Amino acid sequence: MYALDLEVIFGRHWLFCATEAEIPEPGDFVTVEVGSTSVIIVRDDDEGVSALLNVCRHRGSRIVDDPCGAVGNFVCPYHQWTYRTDGSLIFAESSQPGFDRSAFGLRRVPVRSLAGLVFVCLSDEPPVDFDEVAGVLEPYLAPYRLAGLKVAHQTDLMEAGNWKLVMENNRECLHCDAGHPELTSAYFPFLTSNPEDITPRLRPVYEEYLGAGAKLTEAGATRGIPSGARRELDSRPTGYQVTHMPLAGKGRSFGMGGAPVSAKLIGDVHDAVFGDMSVHFQPNSWFHLLSDHAIVFRALPVAPDRTLVRTTWLVSADAVEGVDYDVDRLTEVWTATNDEDRGFVERQQRGVSDPGYLPGPYATVEFDVEAFVTWYIRRLESHFGGGRDHLGLVPQTAAR
Amino acid sequence: MYALDLEVIFGRHWLFCATEAEIPEPGDFVTVEVGSTSVIIVRDDDEGVSALLNVCRHRGSRIVDDPCGAVGNFVCPYHQWTYRTDGSLIFAESSQPGFDRSAFGLRRVPVRSLAGLVFVCLSDEPPVDFDEVAGVLEPYLAPYRLAGLKVAHQTDLMEAGNWKLVMENNRECLHCDAGHPELTSAYFPFLTSNPEDITPRLRPVYEEYLGAGAKLTEAGATRGIPSGARRELDSRPTGYQVTHMPLAGKGRSFGMGGAPVSAKLIGDVHDAVFGDMSVHFQPNSWFHLLSDHAIVFRALPVAPDRTLVRTTWLVSADAVEGVDYDVDRLTEVWTATNDEDRGFVERQQRGVSDPGYLPGPYATVEFDVEAFVTWYIRRLESHFGGGRDHLGLVPQTAAR
Amino acid sequence: MYALDLEVIFGRHWLFCATEAEIPEPGDFVTVEVGSTSVIIVRDDDEGVSALLNVCRHRGSRIVDDPCGAVGNFVCPYHQWTYRTDGSLIFAESSQPGFDRSAFGLRRVPVRSLAGLVFVCLSDEPPVDFDEVAGVLEPYLAPYRLAGLKVAHQTDLMEAGNWKLVMENNRECLHCDAGHPELTSAYFPFLTSNPEDITPRLRPVYEEYLGAGAKLTEAGATRGIPSGARRELDSRPTGYQVTHMPLAGKGRSFGMGGAPVSAKLIGDVHDAVFGDMSVHFQPNSWFHLLSDHAIVFRALPVAPDRTLVRTTWLVSADAVEGVDYDVDRLTEVWTATNDEDRGFVERQQRGVSDPGYLPGPYATVEFDVEAFVTWYIRRLESHFGGGRDHLGLVPQTAAR
Repeated sequence: MYALDLEVIFGRHWLFCATEAEIPEPGDFVTVEVGSTSVIIVRDDDEGVSALLNVCRHRGSRIVDDPCGAVGNFVCPYHQWTYRTDGSLIFAESSQPGFDRSAFGLRRVPVRSLAGLVFVCLSDEPPVDFDEVAGVLEPYLAPYRLAGLKVAHQTDLMEAGNWKLVMENNRECLHCDAGHPELTSAYFPFLTSNPEDITPRLRPVYEEYLGAGAKLTEAGATRGIPSGARRELDSRPTGYQVTHMPLAGKGRSFGMGGAPVSAKLIGDVHDAVFGDMSVHFQPNSWFHLLSDHAIVFRALPVAPDRTLVRTTWLVSADAVEGVDYDVDRLTEVWTATNDEDRGFVERQQRGVSDPGYLPGPYATVEFDVEAFVTWYIRRLESHFGGGRDHLGLVPQTAAR
Repeated sequence: MYALDLEVIFGRHWLFCATEAEIPEPGDFVTVEVGSTSVIIVRDDDEGVSALLNVCRHRGSRIVDDPCGAVGNFVCPYHQWTYRTDGSLIFAESSQPGFDRSAFGLRRVPVRSLAGLVFVCLSDEPPVDFDEVAGVLEPYLAPYRLAGLKVAHQTDLMEAGNWKLVMENNRECLHCDAGHPELTSAYFPFLTSNPEDITPRLRPVYEEYLGAGAKLTEAGATRGIPSGARRELDSRPTGYQVTHMPLAGKGRSFGMGGAPVSAKLIGDVHDAVFGDMSVHFQPNSWFHLLSDHAIVFRALPVAPDRTLVRTTWLVSADAVEGVDYDVDRLTEVWTATNDEDRGFVERQQRGVSDPGYLPGPYATVEFDVEAFVTWYIRRLESHFGGGRDHLGLVPQTAAR
Repeated sequence: MYALDLEVIFGRHWLFCATEAEIPEPGDFVTVEVGSTSVIIVRDDDEGVSALLNVCRHRGSRIVDDPCGAVGNFVCPYHQWTYRTDGSLIFAESSQPGFDRSAFGLRRVPVRSLAGLVFVCLSDEPPVDFDEVAGVLEPYLAPYRLAGLKVAHQTDLMEAGNWKLVMENNRECLHCDAGHPELTSAYFPFLTSNPEDITPRLRPVYEEYLGAGAKLTEAGATRGIPSGARRELDSRPTGYQVTHMPLAGKGRSFGMGGAPVSAKLIGDVHDAVFGDMSVHFQPNSWFHLLSDHAIVFRALPVAPDRTLVRTTWLVSADAVEGVDYDVDRLTEVWTATNDEDRGFVERQQRGVSDPGYLPGPYATVEFDVEAFVTWYIRRLESHFGGGRDHLGLVPQTAAR
């Protein structure tokens, strides 16, 4: 199943990999490892973004070892084959007579930037619906001007669990109340939009939540930013969701109790109270855009039971560390939350690997987990070219 | 073969897992890992012993991480599904309409206590001969009152060898003379009951051995404890053996030179010189009951070439550490012996993994190794429903 | 492919394993691990060299754990079965009636010494062309009297790459200019014998190289040592090559800038300026014989992506450490070179494991890499008993 996941899911869908903010200048690059595949994402000499396979066309050496850096050209360390940042080969020593350099450039990978978020697809025939999705999301994201932000911090967390458990964990907040005391100090405790489920004790808080939501919609309308949720998580190859949610407490940002974490607002957002613009992509990424910073997450499989979660915190380019923001305070809530989630994923990994495991019923608020699983199964069905008979897979819902 | 061993041998036979002495109070539990399966062995609220699969029925998380502990109820750390110590589900948040809690208790595993020794079977159809074997062994073991003893020490030793090599090593003492100087200071050097094999030089020691044996039989008869050996190692699913053997030197216990290791005798044993009541179970355990303490051993497979051996030392509940016994002195002989055996197993693992390995002939005194192998082959034959043709397996004896 | 390599390449060809200089006295031994097979190479009581499988014929334990040592007899540590250095069994305790000791000696492996270099073959039907190859090489190697040298230093370097990448790296020096600054201080920068490829700037150095080569030939002729290259790298099972190359700079040895590294010349070599007698063997060894020392290398597979490279430095038996040679200076160039090569191999391993890898064209000076690959493919073809259709393998050259 892991090989199938790498081939069908990670090999043929758009994957969020990096932000343009990580490669501001020509020659700046980051590398991304998807299974055994290494991709170089580089700022071109013409200011565009290229994605190149990190494998020399001579004898197959890795071209760059470093996770990020800056180059003039790429020079393979083994025999000095030299490539431009667009991948074209410009030097190869002792080549055979008739050798055609133009046939041996670094292989290029489809790449797109959506409002500064860089997606690549390892297939030469990427899903065609990306542009349509980008069209939907662009108005939500553009005001944050993500490409022009500054990377304030980045962490890599290895979780001892399959990537699907990492994603399922991300797609529900039923575990938040008991599991994420830091995060829930900024989040309203409402996981459902069904007013009938609100207990009398929580009714006043619910009213506050509704009021805060209405203010967000109003503020967005003033700025020309759409605020209605869009949700196509399991109905297309490039599954996504965007939701604009009010924050609790001080209502500003992801500091403890909803406190702000940077003194400089980002992009064109002029309201300090502007909630959480929350975006999900299938199969492997999620994003929180706040008035004073943005956090982007990606999960990449490393082994059947190992997943690397990269978290990047972005602040305004003119925010000064130690003056406008403090890294510890900026990252406090999500560093704790990530680590708590790692614990949940790892416990679940051990449990679902137990021959005694039986799938159980979802809770009502786990609908986005179900959407993830449905998307996943549909993508496999599509790969096998027919109904679900091929794998014998049925969504867990059917077993309820 | 490892998967087959987990399925057929460890998945369908009674496995010694723990002693009741480890879980004296309601809510006390230990966990046992058999391959990827984790079982919670817990003292019920009604003072019985339950065995539960350690997998939440909601999304499959491990319920408990700790190897032992005490609980009121079991609460899954992921979404707080809550179970009683008998496994029944009493709380599940945000459940779907019509959800039936009674259908989602923790799965129960067959469990038996034999004189305080807890056995579980991972199959719903465990071997039916356990009760018969228990009937045979109960009179030998009951006088030691194992359930009421105190755990003085417990060690886990990871051995880099297949579990079958660990068991074969346990089932012969041909290697003891050169390999276990500590153990042989308490054991008579007689591995056979064939008097013709005794050399003239050893004749006086042999006479001493026979005399000590006769005294044991006499002492047992006085107390109503049977002393005749029983041996059904390869003739039934729940293969076992019990032998009552005299000790050399001071003849008391497993201290160096047969010295006692605790000042308080255990159970109803009133003779300080009462030899070694030695018990073997297929596939994975062995026991030594002495007048002043008991040692219980279990071997569990962790990987094709990795086995975890747990050793537990039990003393009288009223023995006081530092006064009646000293942990170092109590554990000295078997800590050294275990580590020496680990070395033998690991060297053999490397050798039998060598393409140049050819099985060789057993020595005459390796009859219990042969009994183990015969039991193992018969269990596989039984699984495959016919003669040994299915696997092409023949006992090594036939090849001599 | 790894299993096939172990079976066909390492299981059926002559492998350089050690030098006689490592086992000067009767009972001296070294062990060699080829995949899971362990071989003891031991100096017999009759001064010959025996190769024995390191597996006890009783229950399969490893006989010796140490990589080298000295014994009277081999005693298995498990149950003390005892073998002479020729492998014959002389003691087995408690054996069954009728046990025939002569049938249970340690299994012997074919072994040959070529001028002090010890080769073994794990097959009972080793390639018959070894003696012919030895006849060719003996006159080149004998004057160095390798068996009588002294081991000055030995290193084991684990490289995270497949053994074939290690060998390919060894078989070309296109990477030397940029990759091995230490080594190229002693080597002339000429990888080809085609004078047309020499640039005008390098012409004077090339003339110097030709002159140094002519002097070597002359010196060899005086001593009766052949100096013409012999190259049968891909045309026979025991593929080999010998080349006598002049050194640059001081022209003496592998010290920095061609400096000598030991004050005592070795064997019958009386010219301090005697170049580098360079020998290659398929599948896994290479050798450099200098006037003042010899370096021998072997690569052995440990896993599909792991290879152990052992390097042994030999000096004159009467050279005194600290007086005639200094170990740091003796080993400086090749310790650095080995480590640099490890880096190249590991980067290439990651790259060729990338699904995005496509084989590329060789440079003109990579002809010995191609010879290695051709030899390898021919050996597999021979194994499969026919044309290359069986594996679908074609040399990369054909794809240029």
